[in-house]
This record gives sequence, C-alpha cells and structure tokens, in this order.
Amino acid sequence: MDNFIFQSPTKFVFGKNTETQVGTLLKESNAKKVLVHYGTGSIKRSGLFDRVIKAINEVGIDYLELGGVVPNPRDTLVYKGIELCKKEQVDFILAVGGGSVIDSAKAISAGALYDGDFWDFFDRLEQVKETLKVGVVLTIHAAGSEGSTSSIITKTSPLRKKGLNTELFRPVFAIINPELTFTLPTYQTAAGIVDMMSHIFERYFTKSKNVILVDRLSEATMVTIIEAAKVIIKNPTDYEARATICWASTIAHNGSLGVGRGSDWATHRLEHELSAMYDITHGAGLAVMIPAYMRYTVKSDIQRYRRFAIKVMKVKDNKRKPLKVAMLGIDRLEAFFKSLNMPTSFKEINMSIDDIPKLVENLYVNVGERVGNYQTLTMEDAKKIYELACK
Amino acid sequence: MDNFIFQSPTKFVFGKNTETQVGTLLKESNAKKVLVHYGTGSIKRSGLFDRVIKAINEVGIDYLELGGVVPNPRDTLVYKGIELCKKEQVDFILAVGGGSVIDSAKAISAGALYDGDFWDFFDRLEQVKETLKVGVVLTIHAAGSEGSTSSIITKTSPLRKKGLNTELFRPVFAIINPELTFTLPTYQTAAGIVDMMSHIFERYFTKSKNVILVDRLSEATMVTIIEAAKVIIKNPTDYEARATICWASTIAHNGSLGVGRGSDWATHRLEHELSAMYDITHGAGLAVMIPAYMRYTVKSDIQRYRRFAIKVMKVKDNKRKPLKVAMLGIDRLEAFFKSLNMPTSFKEINMSIDDIPKLVENLYVNVGERVGNYQTLTMEDAKKIYELACK
Repeated sequence: MDNFIFQSPTKFVFGKNTETQVGTLLKESNAKKVLVHYGTGSIKRSGLFDRVIKAINEVGIDYLELGGVVPNPRDTLVYKGIELCKKEQVDFILAVGGGSVIDSAKAISAGALYDGDFWDFFDRLEQVKETLKVGVVLTIHAAGSEGSTSSIITKTSPLRKKGLNTELFRPVFAIINPELTFTLPTYQTAAGIVDMMSHIFERYFTKSKNVILVDRLSEATMVTIIEAAKVIIKNPTDYEARATICWASTIAHNGSLGVGRGSDWATHRLEHELSAMYDITHGAGLAVMIPAYMRYTVKSDIQRYRRFAIKVMKVKDNKRKPLKVAMLGIDRLEAFFKSLNMPTSFKEINMSIDDIPKLVENLYVNVGERVGNYQTLTMEDAKKIYELACK
Repeated sequence: MDNFIFQSPTKFVFGKNTETQVGTLLKESNAKKVLVHYGTGSIKRSGLFDRVIKAINEVGIDYLELGGVVPNPRDTLVYKGIELCKKEQVDFILAVGGGSVIDSAKAISAGALYDGDFWDFFDRLEQVKETLKVGVVLTIHAAGSEGSTSSIITKTSPLRKKGLNTELFRPVFAIINPELTFTLPTYQTAAGIVDMMSHIFERYFTKSKNVILVDRLSEATMVTIIEAAKVIIKNPTDYEARATICWASTIAHNGSLGVGRGSDWATHRLEHELSAMYDITHGAGLAVMIPAYMRYTVKSDIQRYRRFAIKVMKVKDNKRKPLKVAMLGIDRLEAFFKSLNMPTSFKEINMSIDDIPKLVENLYVNVGERVGNYQTLTMEDAKKIYELACK
C-alpha cells in the first residue's frame, strides 16, 4: 500500500426532499451573497429552481443567478461568472445541476479571487491559493464532482479541454436527492453510469501492490452499480436503485476508492480529446474508449484484468487461460455498455479513422509525450488505442 | 436506504514515517500551544515521543505534556487535562496513542471550553457547542477514534462508563503509520481486531432495507480484516497486513459504513458494563458479548445473519436451513475470536453468573428500559444475553 493523504470534508446531505435544506446549509456556511449557477433550464421546468430559491429566501440570503452551463462546460461562461462574482461581491456559489454545472462553479470559484486569467490555473502557470465556497444541489449521478477535487473546462479558442485538481475544489456541502434524477433522459443516465465506473477503473487498474482492501471495496461498488443500472434503465423512478447509484457515483470519485494506490487517468485523457473535438457526452466517449484502452493494455497485467473479469464481470475462472478470462471480462463490460445503448466505437459517434491524427496532436499538446500511469502510453500507443476504438 | 448526512472532515495522513509530518500539520491547523496527551509511557520507551516532540520543536510551536491515560480512560485525568488547558491557554490537543488516549483528548477538548463539569455532556445535561481542536498520532488499530465522532469515558465515582457523540469530536488530522503498531502486544492486536469488527457489526445488523451497496462494502472490509488478522497474529511486523488492518479500522468507524441505515450499539452498551466493572479490555469484552448477542437475536432476522454467514464467514449456503447457516456463521466468528486467543465467555474473564444482576442494574442506570435498535432489548433480554455469555 502506498502512503497517502485522504480528506473528504464535504458534508453530504442525502435522501428524499433534502433540497429543502439548502437555505440552512447556506446559512451554516456563512453565505452572504450567493450565485445560483445552473444549466440550460431543465431545473426551471421541473420546479427545482423555484424550490431552491424559496429555501434561500426563507433564510433571507441575497442571491443572483447565472444559467446556461452546457455539457463540456465552456470557459466563456466561466469568465462571465467570474465577472459577476467580482462585480456583485458574491461569496458563495451554489451549483444546481450535474458535473458540468459543478465544474463550471468550481472554475468560477477560483477565478473570482484571482486577478489574472483563470485559465492560468488550468495551464499550470499558477496554483490555486483560494476559492469561493461552492455548494451543490445534485441532479445527475455521473461525474462525482459533488465530492471531488476536480474541474474540467473546455476552452473554446483555441479548442482545449483540460482538468484541474485541487483540494480547494471540494464542495462544502452536497445535497443529493435521488428523486431529482428520476427525469434524467435515459441517455444521460447511461452515460453517467459509464462515467462513474470509469472513475473506479482509473484507480482500480493500478501498479501499486498490496491493495486488497480497496480492491474489494471497488469491486463491491462496481458490482452494485451494474446491478442497479439494469434496474433504473428499465424503471427510471425506482428510488432505491437511484439512491444506490447516486451514492456509488459519489464514492467512486471522492477519493475513498483511490487511497494507497497510484491511479491512471489515461482513458479520461484520451476521451477528453473526443468530447472536446466533437462535443459528445463524456460518458459516451468513455464507453467508446474504455474497451479499446483495456484491450490494448490487458497484457501489461493479465492477472489484474483476470481479477476484474472474475470479481466484477462474473466470468468463470480458468487458471490455465488467464488471458482468455481477462478478455472475456472486457467483452462483457462492452456488452454491458451496449445494453445501456451506449456507443462503443468511433462509427457510432460519427467519428472516423481520419480524425485520429488530429486527436493525437491535441492530446500531445495537452499531456506531452506520455500519458497514464498503469501503463505509460506514448503518443504511438494513443494512436493505436484510438484505432482500436474504430473497429 | 434511509436519508443520511455524512461528513468525515479528518485529514488522514497514512503510511511509513508519517509521524514526522506532525509539526507541519499542527502549523496548518494554526496550533499555538499544544497539549501532548498520551498513555502510560510506551511511546517514551519506543522513541515515538521524542520524534513527535522533535517535529513540534522544528516548527517552533509551544507545547506541554500530559501522560497517564489508561485503558477505559478515567474522568480523573480528563479533569486534570481540562485544568491544564485552561491554566496554560492550550488551543490544540495532540493525542499520541490509541482509542483511550484519543477519547480522553476529545473529552478534554470539550471541557476546556466549558465552565461547568464536562460530565454534564456525558449525562446529556448540556450539549457540546465548541471544542479545542484535536489531532492524532495513532499507535493502536482498534477503536477508530482517530476518525470518529465518539468519546467513551469511565467515571470513577460512582462507577459509570459512558459514550458521547458529536461531529465536533472528529479530529482535524490523524497520522496513521502502520509501523507504529508493530510492537503492540498480541493481546492488544487481537482485542483491536474484535473492536473494529464490532464497529461494522453495529451498523451491518440493521433493520433498514435496500442497503446493498453498504452491505457489500462492509462485507469486503470484514473479509479483509479476518484475512489480514491471521497474518499479523503470526507475523506482527508484516507491514502490508498492518496497513490493511489500520485503514480497515479507520473506515470501520468513521461512518462511511453506516450511511443510509439505522445502527444498533446494543453489544457495545452491554460490553461497557463489563469493562466498567472489571476494567477488562473493551475488545476482549466484546469478544465475550458478540457471540451471545448474535445467538440471542439471530431469529429476529435470520436472512441477515444467513447473509453474514455466507458472505463473511464463508459458510456454504443451504436455502432450506437458513437458521442452521446463520448459526454456523456465528460459530465460525466465535472460533475466529478464539483463534486470536480472545475470551468468549464470562469464565475466561473471571466473571460469573452472580455478577449479572449488578451488570443489568448498571445498564439500566445508563440506558434506561431499552437498548438497541436492530432488536430493541429490554433489561430482561439483556439479562438473558449476559447469561448466554456465561456458558
């Protein structure tokens, strides 16, 4: 087990009707002026926005609003949010939405207390030293951003999708009411499931040794996600399955399944180029990249992939043919993605083999010569993985 | 899944040589004057005390020391600590030790900012409103107090052992170096293993429904504890097994395995009367009480005990004889405790059936007419469970 530091200070308020507590939680957090940040209006149509505003009004806290966050959230709105926060002396950002809204809120929270261009942080030119506090009312189980240290923003010109991690990005509170996910489109639900699983994969496929406890915790979470996913795809208003998925999604990315081990993140980096260039849903892009990444790296640690196949994908073991077992595990995972109607090849997301040189070029600009930790990949490897994803 | 709030803000700094970071962590916590609180001197003999003091000196923070905490920590030393903190204007308590030292530090941290008698908190006459910050250098994997909300103190006159829970009791940081546990006496190691398992049992045996994710996380942790326990009992300096046990011990009691479900705590309450009256090690008392409690309550939810037997104790399932499977699970757990040389009956801890009326009388004073949540026990039930523990 590697040495580690783990701290997850976010107060998770989980369950039915918990969004009514948002006023009290803002009060507890000493918020004086709140920027309510959200997406493209579904929270207004669903009535959630009104309920949140009512709760804020009840505690007499001042607020203003900034909607319009889109999937693969853009720097343009982040700049707008920063300007608003500075001008109106906002001291708290309430993200009402999913990963994109939360990531946008986090980027604003850093930029609002910085004189320069917030993109400096994403370009690693400056370190984040302070942020406004961010709170969350979660509406999509996917990104785990409600408990994570990360924010991923797409720069529009020149086109770049980049992530930034800092402990300062952990929200102070996150309200998670599984009922709010009942109305998610099936595609979003499915993409979210791939995303949360990928957050576990990025940590599970590790070179670190003697990590059996977290291996088992991760396997328990993955098995449960797969089971509950099958339920909610059929019955989107199954509260218990939604609740299970919601909490799994949070712990998949709050770091608790990453302690004591190196993590990888190559698949995420490879996918970011897809969603940056073609603006596809991150989870859908991951469903394309994960099987390709796994098949390419399987031989680097057959035993770990074999373990995954047996423990998570329930493949029958065959000690004499570990590679076969490992490959079967990947096949079954891909079949699971397909069962969620997720794409698993370039063709299905309208990309072609001709796009690969540009993807690799962009990847190189963002990560340099190498990417990943489980197996360190060169740009030549990246190219081959993209090719595998073409099929 | 029940609604829940989960927040575990403690910064866990885990791994080899991490105690050298104590100065930096105190600095980060803005400590100005530290009370270094510890037990009966083993940390002085081992050299740990000197290393800690060196690290504190290096960052130039003022400190004073208070040793002498004993297992089942006493109110008398808590009073002494409170007096010292008030007199010397201590603003941070550093607990260097195991659960007893940390619990004592937590009680002092509440009393130091209160004008009345700290026992008022334990008697539920007053609520804790503020505490001094507490940090931890852990030396015993057992109580999980390094990440928990609880403190358990023994009042010497009249004799009472009582627990108190408040979110304010979460340590700000906890340094966990598994190497520091290498020299633990085998008995302490074993008692600690029973204690950490009991923290999971108290949450695992629940009436709450649809808790499959946390069930599986709990089972993963229990299976791993049992496996690693067998290794460290044979080879106390096996770093990886110690590390596994250390982290399992922390997550067993930081609340992460208790989300979304009611917990019980009857076994703990029944045991507290044993260790209060006879000053035995808490974990040893639990090894006596757990099998008795389980056998008494098994029929209240045979399917849950059956699941435990199959998933954790690896009993072969027999759908037609669920009670038999459930009982076999309890038998195997008891056998596991015995394999650790833990006592599993009153006789082995020099208690007799004649002690039971007094135990029940004390229990009644501490908890009232009923105890527990999984199965609500009357004092008559408690008596029968104590009788079962006599054998």
